[in-house]
Amino acid sequence: METLGARILSVVPGQVEIAAPVLPGSLQQAGFGHAALTFAIGDSAAGYSALSLMSPDEEVLTAEMKINLLAPAAGDRLVARGRVIRPGRRLFVVGASVFAETADRSVEIALLQGTMVPVPAP
Amino acid sequence: METLGARILSVVPGQVEIAAPVLPGSLQQAGFGHAALTFAIGDSAAGYSALSLMSPDEEVLTAEMKINLLAPAAGDRLVARGRVIRPGRRLFVVGASVFAETADRSVEIALLQGTMVPVPAP
Amino acid sequence: METLGARILSVVPGQVEIAAPVLPGSLQQAGFGHAALTFAIGDSAAGYSALSLMSPDEEVLTAEMKINLLAPAAGDRLVARGRVIRPGRRLFVVGASVFAETADRSVEIALLQGTMVPVPAP
Amino acid sequence: METLGARILSVVPGQVEIAAPVLPGSLQQAGFGHAALTFAIGDSAAGYSALSLMSPDEEVLTAEMKINLLAPAAGDRLVARGRVIRPGRRLFVVGASVFAETADRSVEIALLQGTMVPVPAP
Repeated sequence: METLGARILSVVPGQVEIAAPVLPGSLQQAGFGHAALTFAIGDSAAGYSALSLMSPDEEVLTAEMKINLLAPAAGDRLVARGRVIRPGRRLFVVGASVFAETADRSVEIALLQGTMVPVPAP
Repeated sequence: METLGARILSVVPGQVEIAAPVLPGSLQQAGFGHAALTFAIGDSAAGYSALSLMSPDEEVLTAEMKINLLAPAAGDRLVARGRVIRPGRRLFVVGASVFAETADRSVEIALLQGTMVPVPAP
Repeated sequence: METLGARILSVVPGQVEIAAPVLPGSLQQAGFGHAALTFAIGDSAAGYSALSLMSPDEEVLTAEMKINLLAPAAGDRLVARGRVIRPGRRLFVVGASVFAETADRSVEIALLQGTMVPVPAP
Repeated sequence: METLGARILSVVPGQVEIAAPVLPGSLQQAGFGHAALTFAIGDSAAGYSALSLMSPDEEVLTAEMKINLLAPAAGDRLVARGRVIRPGRRLFVVGASVFAETADRSVEIALLQGTMVPVPAP
């Protein structure tokens, strides 16, 4: 999160919103944000969403995650809205939408769907 | 790639191997490499594999990618072996395995499977 | 569709709803509808949703599809709501939710996310 | 399995091979086997592979599965080779390759990657 320059915009139980700037180091060859940056922020938002429904002595690991890229990551910052689709004792099914934003518009650029596993905090 | 400190280890047509150090900035809360770093290097290796079979005036975009995490990213560096599973005119199906390496061992930590789209180079 | 006993419940551009009975032949060992039946109806609803936005001389093929199972397929019939997430010239990103229904309740049992490719009709 | 006319060809610990005929009821509009049939046999082979490593009082459920279709399901029968990629106490990561076969050739038509969950047998 810190490495990405990301910060949390909002937390409600089961839904967390994160933003990260599109920095020069995250651009791919065509000048857009790299798929890996989009994945990073989407996966983080999904993970925090799961964490928001867990007890304080638990952490969360991504078991699997799938991303469909919808549009180029063209913008000044990325915003990811994570959500818990189905909580569970052993598995959380989660999702996230990622948006590329400029001062005057927001475009949905990716959709993630995956599975988080609660683990005891170290 | 540069942001990750990644470099290409080997290229044969349809298979590309990449390595990246596990830097302090890429660790998650439990002290392992973050899922997003693993995704980044796996997706890059898969993309370069596709690129290795394309003509010089083409580039490649990730359309979708799925990652299953197999083990913690505990090691000094990550190595990703990308491969083209099925080349095509419109779509390339690709895969990648990611390994966490120390001086004396290598553990497979993730498996990726996805779709790349060839696009004209800018 | 015919083999599953499926029928279309509703069509609006970009959204198609399908229902299929949970027949004895579709049960898995524990007496619930099999994951493959859930996949079949979800994939079909997603495909028809894409088809609803295409020209009459086009057909649609599934390029890839991911399903997360959320709950057992316990019910008399399954209902799948397909939707186009992002239409495109070369690729359609689609999704579907599948519900298991009895006379008095409906439970979401699966979520699908995938990619459809338009092809010329034979 | 019975509904598909499927039968097990071979079982070794962690790897199971299944075959199913491509019946008229499983064809899609262009005359090829439907994606859902390919998914069904691939998911079954992956599930049996996991089951082959579990204790007799356990069963297996698909938590999530992703399929990439590689080629049309043109053939007389489908053969799926399932394999356990990573066994675990809580989760099994599994894969499967599906082939369409005629008397004189075999073409890989799909690749699946997913997660199975062991559950107590009823």
